[in-house]
Amino acid sequence: MKRILIRVSYDGTSYHGWQAAEEQETIAGNVDRALKLLTGEDINVSGASRTDAGVHALCNLAVFDTASSVPPERFSYALNTCLPEDIRVISSEEVPKDFHPRFLKTEKTYRYRIQTGEMPDPLRIRYSWHISYPLDILSMQEAAAFLKGEHDFKSFCSVHTDVKTTIREITDIAVSQVSDEVHITVKGYGFLYNMVRIITGTLVETGRGRLKSGDIPLILKSCDRKNAGPTAPPRGLTLMGIDILSEA
Amino acid sequence: MKRILIRVSYDGTSYHGWQAAEEQETIAGNVDRALKLLTGEDINVSGASRTDAGVHALCNLAVFDTASSVPPERFSYALNTCLPEDIRVISSEEVPKDFHPRFLKTEKTYRYRIQTGEMPDPLRIRYSWHISYPLDILSMQEAAAFLKGEHDFKSFCSVHTDVKTTIREITDIAVSQVSDEVHITVKGYGFLYNMVRIITGTLVETGRGRLKSGDIPLILKSCDRKNAGPTAPPRGLTLMGIDILSEA
Repeated sequence: MKRILIRVSYDGTSYHGWQAAEEQETIAGNVDRALKLLTGEDINVSGASRTDAGVHALCNLAVFDTASSVPPERFSYALNTCLPEDIRVISSEEVPKDFHPRFLKTEKTYRYRIQTGEMPDPLRIRYSWHISYPLDILSMQEAAAFLKGEHDFKSFCSVHTDVKTTIREITDIAVSQVSDEVHITVKGYGFLYNMVRIITGTLVETGRGRLKSGDIPLILKSCDRKNAGPTAPPRGLTLMGIDILSEA
Repeated sequence: MKRILIRVSYDGTSYHGWQAAEEQETIAGNVDRALKLLTGEDINVSGASRTDAGVHALCNLAVFDTASSVPPERFSYALNTCLPEDIRVISSEEVPKDFHPRFLKTEKTYRYRIQTGEMPDPLRIRYSWHISYPLDILSMQEAAAFLKGEHDFKSFCSVHTDVKTTIREITDIAVSQVSDEVHITVKGYGFLYNMVRIITGTLVETGRGRLKSGDIPLILKSCDRKNAGPTAPPRGLTLMGIDILSEA
């Protein structure tokens, strides 16, 4: 048996996320099916980030164990012949048998794209949230700065979550105007359920003037989801990449 | 009765083009259905450019006649409430009763996007053609320059076409590298069936070294479709806009 690490890129529009409880179409389910076709083995690929329904990835990581004789680097090409074209395995390599990105220190980068034209552009609507009211970028940048660093992000976490601690560290957060789009780029070692989408919803409330940037420390302090903004829709969110920082 | 001009933007992936002979899902068919819901009238919208199946538009033009009391500028908002989100009417206005962009001198701009990374990016694959071999941009630019101006484009036209003349004028053509993409932008007063896609296929053959840029004048002269390159797939093509040049 050997362990293979794959990098996976996908358009999440048609899927119930990386992984789902029910018999729904998922990214992992499609990779498993392709692995079955290729190796004959019943494999459950294990992802570093279990992205939500409708969320995209430029690069997610996953591992699986196989007894197949397929050379490790050939898995990406071979799997792509069995996968729908909105899922691509962009690389594959052998890793130590106990290697798993979910149990290593990693830094994840997410980007949320917002379209701000008067009318939504149908050529970008799968990958961005359209907002027709004007956004004050400076307010959003000021608000974002309050989120950087280690905080209890309980207010920025969907209520039906079950984690040991809601303390997380945002290592970097940037709000930038890119022609008629606003991009919110967030980096951190780990995120709570819906955290980036709630951060986005809250920054948008700030950008439209319903919240002030100075409200952010109070929202954090309250530890109450109701005080943050709405959860932005999944379509605008893309997992840009996962950097493995150390083997511990 | 008044005549309304609309600007329409769409992701063509799910449609059999602007208009189709059979009872297939088309852009025009969806606009007609939305107009029926809105006005109760049986309207057949008439497009300036009848884009092919799978081809996109940032801005196509179309006109229709209506007795409805909906204010002309409100049609765009009203129609969008009845349209799928991959079709958007971006503006609407009243025009003279005999106005039709297809019978006016217009300049159309098309852009063809090619992805050149080793692996296709699933987040761009709906809107671009992925090519894994390297392309020599300079050769493609040299080849494109031979296509500019007025020529008989019979070699760059699908054979099952029925037009009076295959002489057309390309007013501008540019090949540019935009990060890992190659964009081919073509402007002209009118195009033959599949012309931009055959131009793209031919420039790609030049970029990969199967044709020389100096072959282009010979291909034009031959007036034989077999001598040009293959027809590039529709997904990479977007109608960027139509400028009305004069009312004659």
